Amino acid sequence: MGDWSLEQVREHIGTIRPLDTAAAQAAAAYLDRLTKPPGSLGKLEALAIQLAGITGEMKPVLTKKSVVVMAGDHGVCEEGVSAFPSEVTPQMVLNFLNGGAAVNVLARQAGADVQCVDIGVAVELTHERLLARNIRRGTANMAKGPAMSREEAVRSVLTGAEIAAELVRQGTQLFVTGEMGIGNTTPSAAILSVLSGRPPAETAGRGTGITDEKLLHKIQVLEQAIQINRPRADDPIDVLAKVGGLEIGGLAGLILGAAAQGRPVVIDGFISSAAAFIATAVNPAVLPYLIASHVSQESGHRLLLQELGLSPMLEMDMRLGEGTGGVLSLHLVDAACRIMQEMATFESAGVSGGAT
Amino acid sequence: MGDWSLEQVREHIGTIRPLDTAAAQAAAAYLDRLTKPPGSLGKLEALAIQLAGITGEMKPVLTKKSVVVMAGDHGVCEEGVSAFPSEVTPQMVLNFLNGGAAVNVLARQAGADVQCVDIGVAVELTHERLLARNIRRGTANMAKGPAMSREEAVRSVLTGAEIAAELVRQGTQLFVTGEMGIGNTTPSAAILSVLSGRPPAETAGRGTGITDEKLLHKIQVLEQAIQINRPRADDPIDVLAKVGGLEIGGLAGLILGAAAQGRPVVIDGFISSAAAFIATAVNPAVLPYLIASHVSQESGHRLLLQELGLSPMLEMDMRLGEGTGGVLSLHLVDAACRIMQEMATFESAGVSGGAT
Repeated sequence: MGDWSLEQVREHIGTIRPLDTAAAQAAAAYLDRLTKPPGSLGKLEALAIQLAGITGEMKPVLTKKSVVVMAGDHGVCEEGVSAFPSEVTPQMVLNFLNGGAAVNVLARQAGADVQCVDIGVAVELTHERLLARNIRRGTANMAKGPAMSREEAVRSVLTGAEIAAELVRQGTQLFVTGEMGIGNTTPSAAILSVLSGRPPAETAGRGTGITDEKLLHKIQVLEQAIQINRPRADDPIDVLAKVGGLEIGGLAGLILGAAAQGRPVVIDGFISSAAAFIATAVNPAVLPYLIASHVSQESGHRLLLQELGLSPMLEMDMRLGEGTGGVLSLHLVDAACRIMQEMATFESAGVSGGAT
Repeated sequence: MGDWSLEQVREHIGTIRPLDTAAAQAAAAYLDRLTKPPGSLGKLEALAIQLAGITGEMKPVLTKKSVVVMAGDHGVCEEGVSAFPSEVTPQMVLNFLNGGAAVNVLARQAGADVQCVDIGVAVELTHERLLARNIRRGTANMAKGPAMSREEAVRSVLTGAEIAAELVRQGTQLFVTGEMGIGNTTPSAAILSVLSGRPPAETAGRGTGITDEKLLHKIQVLEQAIQINRPRADDPIDVLAKVGGLEIGGLAGLILGAAAQGRPVVIDGFISSAAAFIATAVNPAVLPYLIASHVSQESGHRLLLQELGLSPMLEMDMRLGEGTGGVLSLHLVDAACRIMQEMATFESAGVSGGAT
């Protein structure tokens, strides 16, 4: 795997089919028969059309939804880029497994299950509900050299894709990306910088809440990491290996795998969007399967969504990650499905249709 | 009622108490003990604090939620300001009563009931579930004179307040505003113009979907209506009577009445926000009881929310009204409550707390 090319990774994950345009067109035509001015439900209508295109069904029913929370640690934390210590990563993983974190609460509300994956936590973790797929115990400090080897980066992506395939076999119809990794806004900003060509001063933000002084330091660390590693913008696996993270690679793989399985993926915040950026660079065919959920308070997130061409539905000033914004948007996904299933048509309700 | 002053209306509706700051502070302190960086749930945390302040409970449980859809017709439609004919208003009222409209679908999803009020529909309507409170059969054409008399305006507000009180007696713990009235973005833009001092060119939008040409005409109609009627910006009842609408008065009253009963009110789109603007002008004490839901595609809505100092949670490009954006945001209200009820604390989960 150490020498796998981008093409080999893409081929291994498998073909991502274009959306079913007939189903999407049928959904669009049906939406215009419902008792409302054409297009007046805005993004709910766009979502209904997209879901029809993905599933091939005009009125899809998406009952089994899985939030996949990938956890990994980051060597770059030794540079002091985060407000919290790395020990919080495994503590929060146990909190997810015990159902006490924000993502658990919001997932219960939305009727989604939470799958927690150790893909790169620095300490050993055992728990019966943990998906134990540790590739290495945290990345190396990217300010001093590559965060991981190319082989580890490839393995993180393939692991994510395998998890998507497993969960689809178990019935998952829709995915939400989530993550936990103290320090992981730093690799996410690095990925955004390299893939978009924007300097770290534009892509770095305050993460879980660092001061002005720490933010300036974080920008310097990012500049140094990019300078030292020279990641190749035309090879997302190289970018992932040199300035990325294991949970980011895992999520990129999950996104690609979900799309290869024909399942929609709701993208959470900044880190999840950086993973989506890697995924679209691996295979642009993944893009129509993505659903943007919220724009977070992390300053680079809006930029990142613009790079992906995605328009978020929620503006909650959140900056927690875990999949929390993604899970909140599941109610909007449900709403789009219910509109198709339950609304009256102009004919059935006897309402005079047709805007002039 | 014809000569009722603003003060008489305000006094009749009753005192609106300030929020319970002790409960709000307790909620804020508790939020900082939960396993997340302080403030990282953004508007969900603000909402949790607000709901504690309104209810006096740190962990409120809001199970009975009512969407109140006020329906009225508009004489100004004879000027050709809308994409749909006025006959659609009563047709949609029947659609609401039969459960087929978008607001019904979304309210079922959110576990809210829909209360439909005829406060000013132009034709006679009878239905066992209709709240029949018709004040007059549609307003007069405000481009030629006052939309209604001062007495009718006062009655519309008091009717809304009475409905709030009735529903609270029946158990409603939280209100969502909704409306139906072909042509009602025109009086809403007029209200925004008069109360904010901004010209109709800034406040008028495309409503359910009019052309460029019709939009220019709508702006002229608004300018004419304000010119002819000279509503007094310091008297919201005068503004409501001269350039408002019966459903807008009803919603302003509902909002004031809900706050007087100590209940939170979720504000839907442009028309609902115009009603909230009237309500805050009647009694500014209502403001802390308001929850902004979404910003609609109607161009003046963002401006209106800014005037009210409210920050919307959803950005869905919707422009349907009915309460649809408000009902969608009920999931976010539920999320705020569940976060307080279900999340683990740093102590209970054994997570290292305290950002540095």
